[in-house]
Amino acid sequence: MKLLRVGTAGAERPALLDAEGVLRDLSGVVPDIDGALLADDVALGRIRTAAEAGELPALDADGLRVGPPVARIGKVVCIGLNYHDHARETGAEPPAEPVIFFKAADTVVGPHDTVLVPRGSVKTDWEVELAVVIGRTARYLGSREEALAHVAGYAVAHDVSEREFQIERGGTWDKGKNCETFNPLGPWLVTADEVPDPQALGLKLWVNGELRQDGSTGDQIFSVAEVVRYVSQFMTLYPGDVINTGTPAGVALGMPEPKPFLRAGDVVELEIGGLGRQRQVFAPA
Amino acid sequence: MKLLRVGTAGAERPALLDAEGVLRDLSGVVPDIDGALLADDVALGRIRTAAEAGELPALDADGLRVGPPVARIGKVVCIGLNYHDHARETGAEPPAEPVIFFKAADTVVGPHDTVLVPRGSVKTDWEVELAVVIGRTARYLGSREEALAHVAGYAVAHDVSEREFQIERGGTWDKGKNCETFNPLGPWLVTADEVPDPQALGLKLWVNGELRQDGSTGDQIFSVAEVVRYVSQFMTLYPGDVINTGTPAGVALGMPEPKPFLRAGDVVELEIGGLGRQRQVFAPA
Repeated sequence: MKLLRVGTAGAERPALLDAEGVLRDLSGVVPDIDGALLADDVALGRIRTAAEAGELPALDADGLRVGPPVARIGKVVCIGLNYHDHARETGAEPPAEPVIFFKAADTVVGPHDTVLVPRGSVKTDWEVELAVVIGRTARYLGSREEALAHVAGYAVAHDVSEREFQIERGGTWDKGKNCETFNPLGPWLVTADEVPDPQALGLKLWVNGELRQDGSTGDQIFSVAEVVRYVSQFMTLYPGDVINTGTPAGVALGMPEPKPFLRAGDVVELEIGGLGRQRQVFAPA
Repeated sequence: MKLLRVGTAGAERPALLDAEGVLRDLSGVVPDIDGALLADDVALGRIRTAAEAGELPALDADGLRVGPPVARIGKVVCIGLNYHDHARETGAEPPAEPVIFFKAADTVVGPHDTVLVPRGSVKTDWEVELAVVIGRTARYLGSREEALAHVAGYAVAHDVSEREFQIERGGTWDKGKNCETFNPLGPWLVTADEVPDPQALGLKLWVNGELRQDGSTGDQIFSVAEVVRYVSQFMTLYPGDVINTGTPAGVALGMPEPKPFLRAGDVVELEIGGLGRQRQVFAPA
């Protein structure tokens, strides 16, 4: 299923995009799409049954804002340098074990919302990423198979990054990863049953129409299953938590000088095969 | 005012500790203590009026668990190496600007709750810290005075840390800061009007009765006001967000070998002048 949330920010209603591409209202079936729903097989079954029975009213998609596909996200765990080609372009050795950093959940916005270039920023950069949404509480998972059973689904994430804040201002990467609006998510949460192989997804990103990133999750150093298993050794993952699993090559940081960092007015589009497409206009904070 | 939340985890009720040390029930006045309350001067005024009028029923404190003093915390921003004496003991240069890292809000537990030593951990360490709780949305604050006007109050925080995970396992510090139960908070949120000078607070921590940390916020490299102003340049702070402002000298990491890292069965007590005292028994995860 493709689950999403539509409406004005903070007042989204749950919806489903059906196999014919028609937007269907879920607000008569479930109150919202959040961790509680994703952990509730009965409620998910209700959605599936209602969809198959053709009982869900169609919604007029025209002019309707799309919000993030998950409400009340607890935390956003991010994996750094997780693609061979991206590690190469930044001059870093492939890490021996996953690199973890954080984005605050309050950085998450809808897939087509405006993204703000922070005040004083000269190095705002793009990163298309496969986001994993957790469906069951995960602590000290024993295997990669067990890890995949804790995944509710997948979505497109934009891990917007300010490289000067991230690398040149002291301390950890978090300083350049948590600016307001820095994590567009969606349009949909695609449930895990519809993504048979998360290591076979193409990721693309364009800046002002020019293709900048063109990778595949097959190039990940640590697979989705290994990332979820690994992270669960260091922290507890809860339903509705999100893991951004890293970005392939092609970011501004990896390009020759003058690096084409983002400025107000730039348009970024992102796509992952089967998971949909995002488009953001950048504006001053 | 000293605001707190008492009762079983996840079902706490709001309470007030009055000037005579009597616990008073606030559940007839406000639904909970959270970011929404801290941003609401009218509701805070209702509490103050009811307390002064002696209208709040007393609660029997006997056997009552104390929870974290703030519900639905959005994010916990942490400042690293923010005391001159702690930077010295770890062999680090005092940072030129604040070091930022993150704890997930789901690591926050009550001040006397059990803390879990992570599986495989051999370097679990303690850190007493002054926590700042935000009361108003803060973005790009212009001055330290303006910053202090965005603070709702203060509390004791224990920034429990696993040093091997933090420093020796690749990536940022976050890997050793986000284990389950790693952020006891409380017992009280003391409103900012009762903390005239946040740079004159004594911090103490004992392990199994032995005094290990004995510092003062006067030794902070970056003051509370400067920290809040600085962080607001890189991210938006929302009511109910928490900033852990760093720890003074005396952690296990800074001691000679064999460093006395924490093990299951150890008891840690923490105190900040005027903000109350915590006590945790450590147990295996």
